[in-house]
Amino acid sequence: MPSSPIRKLAPLAQAAKAQGVKVYHLNIGQPDLPTPEKGLEALRHITRKTLEYSPSDGYLSLREKFSGYYRQKGLDVSPEEIIVTAGGSEAILLTFMACLDPGDQVIMLEPGYANYISFSQTAGIEVCTVTSNIEDGFALPGIEAFEKVITPRTKAILLCNPSNPTGYVYSAGEMEKIRDIVRKYDLFLVCDEVYREFVYNGEPCTSALSLGIDEHVVVIDSVSKRYSECGIRIGMVVTRNKAVHDTVMKFCQARLSPPLLGQIVAEASIEGVEDYLKACHAEYKARRDFFIDGLNRIPGVVSPMPQGAFYTVASLPVEDAEDFCRWCLTDFRLDGETLMMAPAAGFYSTPGLGKNQVRMAYVLKIEDLRRCLRLLEEALKQYNNR
Amino acid sequence: MPSSPIRKLAPLAQAAKAQGVKVYHLNIGQPDLPTPEKGLEALRHITRKTLEYSPSDGYLSLREKFSGYYRQKGLDVSPEEIIVTAGGSEAILLTFMACLDPGDQVIMLEPGYANYISFSQTAGIEVCTVTSNIEDGFALPGIEAFEKVITPRTKAILLCNPSNPTGYVYSAGEMEKIRDIVRKYDLFLVCDEVYREFVYNGEPCTSALSLGIDEHVVVIDSVSKRYSECGIRIGMVVTRNKAVHDTVMKFCQARLSPPLLGQIVAEASIEGVEDYLKACHAEYKARRDFFIDGLNRIPGVVSPMPQGAFYTVASLPVEDAEDFCRWCLTDFRLDGETLMMAPAAGFYSTPGLGKNQVRMAYVLKIEDLRRCLRLLEEALKQYNNR
Repeated sequence: MPSSPIRKLAPLAQAAKAQGVKVYHLNIGQPDLPTPEKGLEALRHITRKTLEYSPSDGYLSLREKFSGYYRQKGLDVSPEEIIVTAGGSEAILLTFMACLDPGDQVIMLEPGYANYISFSQTAGIEVCTVTSNIEDGFALPGIEAFEKVITPRTKAILLCNPSNPTGYVYSAGEMEKIRDIVRKYDLFLVCDEVYREFVYNGEPCTSALSLGIDEHVVVIDSVSKRYSECGIRIGMVVTRNKAVHDTVMKFCQARLSPPLLGQIVAEASIEGVEDYLKACHAEYKARRDFFIDGLNRIPGVVSPMPQGAFYTVASLPVEDAEDFCRWCLTDFRLDGETLMMAPAAGFYSTPGLGKNQVRMAYVLKIEDLRRCLRLLEEALKQYNNR
Repeated sequence: MPSSPIRKLAPLAQAAKAQGVKVYHLNIGQPDLPTPEKGLEALRHITRKTLEYSPSDGYLSLREKFSGYYRQKGLDVSPEEIIVTAGGSEAILLTFMACLDPGDQVIMLEPGYANYISFSQTAGIEVCTVTSNIEDGFALPGIEAFEKVITPRTKAILLCNPSNPTGYVYSAGEMEKIRDIVRKYDLFLVCDEVYREFVYNGEPCTSALSLGIDEHVVVIDSVSKRYSECGIRIGMVVTRNKAVHDTVMKFCQARLSPPLLGQIVAEASIEGVEDYLKACHAEYKARRDFFIDGLNRIPGVVSPMPQGAFYTVASLPVEDAEDFCRWCLTDFRLDGETLMMAPAAGFYSTPGLGKNQVRMAYVLKIEDLRRCLRLLEEALKQYNNR
């Protein structure tokens, strides 16, 4: 098992903090925005006497709310097509275990969310990667790149749309290309759409659920980022494929139930939060505009303009970004402050790729992002003049 | 993947309820006792604005409380030897994945907690069983029974003490026998001790942590049953084996963090609840005494006297207990009521064993248990006279 590139430097950050250093966390997608007040209110007014097991697929009342959410997006999803999980993380792992046998292959894009690899290893499945490139902003590679890695053991394509870590949003046209490969080779399309609400180019994100290939599609969703409630661990598997649904359910029965309290918060967070979502969207967009512009003004730093989520993968004028990230935590201080980034090599499977890149999450207030830009510029200067 | 024997008949129970039938649930270990008021109060007074990720191993403040709990039990466990998980379920799965490679073997007792089998399958490990028998109250079989199934691929013994589903409590002497095998064959001892507080023979339960074989031991623990808060999904892996700890942590990083809200409730539940625990203990003991006595008064029903947990495996005067359990849900009604039990065959790995047995959880008030006994007696009579 590889260590998480997002969390592996955490001990160094802790050591810095123990020295009294302030560490700005750009490494992890932990939104700083508040959870909807309605979600917190639901906790404060809890009247239950016993915090008991919920159904293995989650409370029907919650699944009905999710169903309503999808209907608003123009997606016809029934409560029976939704299984509530312990975050998107569990949703991915259970989907892998339900759709693929050990030894089967799944195609992923790189750079990709590092924990996909961990879940693949847990499920005993092999990861084949198709590389997207910083030069074209991490757009979908041509179909031939997918066909090149497809073998008789290929069972699924995993897509994250909008993408973590690149922030790239796959267009309707790109999603149709994916649909065609999925159909042609009879694959599953596992689509992680947890950042669906955070798209900044004016177009709604094309859900895999709208592609007309229902039997092939499993969507991973989560309330974590949408409502700034990562800690409640509520995600879901959404599929119209009955066999996949039923197999995921068997795994769900073994682990008994998803978190009860998280379900209570999630259920209270879904409806009547249009203004909240609009405000979050505006805030992230403003941060993106500010932060990406600032990154590209630092000599030698190049960041594409991400169209979704709240991450970017940028290249730095260093040879070994992991060494630089470590050095920032162990050696670099500016007025008692430093910053933490995630080395991007951990988001690539192909050895050697992304060595000079980092993933950054713009989940801090603009004034903090301004400070991060200053810290990064100064750190690069000092690091390269050591 | 097999379906959970505890939950597989749930659709039949739902159908009965939809007809207006009252169903008494003896099938599932869902305690009806209240969660400690302090745990619920912690939720009502939540002041956080953002429900964010917690550390992958859980909050230090919670692990310190757990450490204090163990110290009270005479067990020296540091916070660094504890990893908080999404219930005991996740603790078991991650322990299997950390301690065993696919193809390795684990020895379990049968009848055993059915989901152990599911987690083994998920981890790709093979289950070898040693059979315990209702005739001697499901006592630990002789050492030779273990040695007979040990192969070079055997890597661990899994024990549940007190046992779910039998309620058997392994004595200090039996635990020493287990210790000797574990040492002799250099195995891991994974000991599920979630029912530790519920022992009715006056002796405290012998923890695997007290056996002096620290490098071999992983203890599974959970607050679910202890504080009647199954829904919060807070369990833990406890081990002094650093390599196992660190490997479990890698899996934990992939799934990001255990439920935040559950940690808040658990932390508030641990201290100052001696009276609460005493009251729960007294209540379960009274139920056990009443229920087991009543079971053995029903013609043809035989139940050992369980010394711990809140389950019993009893044999019924029927050939096929699963058929009988189904029939209770689909056909049997007494004044508009029926009962649900878990067919025990699902707790055995050896085909054919336990066919005339059921597992029952005495997690209902005594007046409800009285009614269950009446329903069971009448159902058996009608079933056998069909």
